[in-house]
Amino acid sequence: VRFQRGSEEFSRVLAFSDGMFAIAMTLLVVGIAVPELTDPSSSELLDSLEDLLPEIISFFISFAVIGRYWAAHHQFFAMLGSMDYALIAINLIYLAFVAFLPFPTALLGDYIETPAAVAIYAVAVAVVSGLEVVLFWRAYRDRLLARDMPPEVFRWGVWGSTMPVVFLLLSVPVAFIDTGVAIAVWFLSVPGGMVLNRIQPEAARDWW
Amino acid sequence: VRFQRGSEEFSRVLAFSDGMFAIAMTLLVVGIAVPELTDPSSSELLDSLEDLLPEIISFFISFAVIGRYWAAHHQFFAMLGSMDYALIAINLIYLAFVAFLPFPTALLGDYIETPAAVAIYAVAVAVVSGLEVVLFWRAYRDRLLARDMPPEVFRWGVWGSTMPVVFLLLSVPVAFIDTGVAIAVWFLSVPGGMVLNRIQPEAARDWW
Amino acid sequence: VRFQRGSEEFSRVLAFSDGMFAIAMTLLVVGIAVPELTDPSSSELLDSLEDLLPEIISFFISFAVIGRYWAAHHQFFAMLGSMDYALIAINLIYLAFVAFLPFPTALLGDYIETPAAVAIYAVAVAVVSGLEVVLFWRAYRDRLLARDMPPEVFRWGVWGSTMPVVFLLLSVPVAFIDTGVAIAVWFLSVPGGMVLNRIQPEAARDWW
Amino acid sequence: VRFQRGSEEFSRVLAFSDGMFAIAMTLLVVGIAVPELTDPSSSELLDSLEDLLPEIISFFISFAVIGRYWAAHHQFFAMLGSMDYALIAINLIYLAFVAFLPFPTALLGDYIETPAAVAIYAVAVAVVSGLEVVLFWRAYRDRLLARDMPPEVFRWGVWGSTMPVVFLLLSVPVAFIDTGVAIAVWFLSVPGGMVLNRIQPEAARDWW
Repeated sequence: VRFQRGSEEFSRVLAFSDGMFAIAMTLLVVGIAVPELTDPSSSELLDSLEDLLPEIISFFISFAVIGRYWAAHHQFFAMLGSMDYALIAINLIYLAFVAFLPFPTALLGDYIETPAAVAIYAVAVAVVSGLEVVLFWRAYRDRLLARDMPPEVFRWGVWGSTMPVVFLLLSVPVAFIDTGVAIAVWFLSVPGGMVLNRIQPEAARDWW
Repeated sequence: VRFQRGSEEFSRVLAFSDGMFAIAMTLLVVGIAVPELTDPSSSELLDSLEDLLPEIISFFISFAVIGRYWAAHHQFFAMLGSMDYALIAINLIYLAFVAFLPFPTALLGDYIETPAAVAIYAVAVAVVSGLEVVLFWRAYRDRLLARDMPPEVFRWGVWGSTMPVVFLLLSVPVAFIDTGVAIAVWFLSVPGGMVLNRIQPEAARDWW
Repeated sequence: VRFQRGSEEFSRVLAFSDGMFAIAMTLLVVGIAVPELTDPSSSELLDSLEDLLPEIISFFISFAVIGRYWAAHHQFFAMLGSMDYALIAINLIYLAFVAFLPFPTALLGDYIETPAAVAIYAVAVAVVSGLEVVLFWRAYRDRLLARDMPPEVFRWGVWGSTMPVVFLLLSVPVAFIDTGVAIAVWFLSVPGGMVLNRIQPEAARDWW
Repeated sequence: VRFQRGSEEFSRVLAFSDGMFAIAMTLLVVGIAVPELTDPSSSELLDSLEDLLPEIISFFISFAVIGRYWAAHHQFFAMLGSMDYALIAINLIYLAFVAFLPFPTALLGDYIETPAAVAIYAVAVAVVSGLEVVLFWRAYRDRLLARDMPPEVFRWGVWGSTMPVVFLLLSVPVAFIDTGVAIAVWFLSVPGGMVLNRIQPEAARDWW
């Protein structure tokens, strides 16, 4: 069976995915506990909020990371003309790891100087990016895209989703030497993305 | 009253169901508490995460089980041409047990060697599968399907949803002898499904 | 401004409402804590689950009550042809009390023999039913219904939503005499509804 | 890329936003813990609920504040004819601060007499209103509105969203003198809004 764009069944998969993303992104606020003080002065309150700062920053980072994947998910499904159950199944596995992300993010927020926390976070995010590649590859191979995609555009798109995986996995051994350098390695995706944009094939211009 | 496919009211029932599924599937991450350690080494952190392993596995199992029912729900409603309030009411009862599933799953995750935990889990999942049969039967009887379904296709479909119920209930007494064997009984659905696929009536081919 | 049925803006109000209902209905499972035991026998586990029974029952009652209001909400908006911001505002106030319901339900689950708990629950549910009447009255007065409704059908519909309010408020003083009788008063809505069905005006037949 | 009104991609952004709003508005009920008493009398129960009153009021205030922003979001996107990824990105940042609001609201509920709590709340809400202005400005500049908007209507609309920001930021220094006066300053938006309505340009009449 194939569900065409515009059918109730196509929409449902997106609505379900969006619900999942929205919950995963909002859940972390629950974790920020209001400090219990009796009739505090402003400076006492601000002092106690300072202890909450890592949790607050962790909320916004988690929001940004999952939000970035939501945007990628939005961008990917915008290219689709139809879906089959194989793609829906891969999407479910992808969502399982998205829904799991708040945990490694909280871990990172608490233990940013512990190599294992940095490594676990990098692997968790790499899995999500990796499953993005799988979704893209399935959609291309089974001709679920709305229009025919030239092979060089597909290859270029795969590179775009694979690059973060490479840098994230590269950062794992680095974390055990220096966690700061490991986090810096993640951001190599930014110049990497700029290089990829330079070598973008002409035909890719109207796909993204 | 009947709500036709394509109407706002038809869509709402699906959107509401999807919201429910998404929340039930995401909720368990909240349960995974980040360990509280002061400036841990990587091995200390990994040690403390080992204690969390059952909860992490429990999250992914719960996600897989509820995700499988979401896919079945998606597949079932894809066959519908309209809904009435009787079907909507059965769907609500069905969703109540889906929303409840995280509890028996957590129970199973913690006490996998206690017969009662295995039995409770089996019964809870059997109820969901059983209500799936009721939904299917109502839709068939009241002609809510998008196209006429030949009786032999309907019977074959009922068998497909009833089989897991049979194996799950069969596992209940078995659990009090050996919990491992009981869990193995659940997976008899896999070869059972393959046998069913063999005897699939010709006319069923374009329904699933 | 009026948002016509079929517009993005009409759908959004329903999607937002459904999200709210779904969350309020699923939240209570979080409250059911898995008992902490070390390697329990089946009878030990079942004993400890007996203590959780009120919470489990409370979950299913809460689900049924909010589910019933969701069905009424679905039924009401199925009659609408358009919405304005006044109706959207009343809907928001209505949803605030729906989202609040899990609290009085939990209170009732824990203290079913305390008059104040029964009274608070009755008032909270009465407020939701009362706001249902306000929604209906606004939609009728401002001609937001999809078709013209004869005044006798409107009056009959108002009676249907007002009756539960009457019985719920009546049960408040009764609760301070006997909580069991108070709860029985709630169920007078059932025979009351049957009487109402008897005197249903002919023209109401194709509205519900 | 531009996603036209009516496309799956346009709807998704709204469904995702609505999910976020619904969760942020419902989450605070979880915070209201049922008091633990053994077989309490009605007056004992009511006494213990008196301690919960700030949390209950905090829930309804939070609901009203976020609900007001949801209505503004609904009103803004009703004017749009299309979206691009720049607007989607600003919307994500906007939603991050909406999802964060329950925390400053809880803070305000607990420490309404502490200047810092009042100031933090005012800044958090001002950020959301400020991002509303940014959304509006982007949509106007990049011609994403469904119809051409005359510049004087745009300027008038910007004033409407900027005024709350001004009063909220003004209240910050005031809070450190007197928290009650600071909260009164917030409500200057109400007469301010009435003045703005007086000077509404003729052409604005059919936009809001």
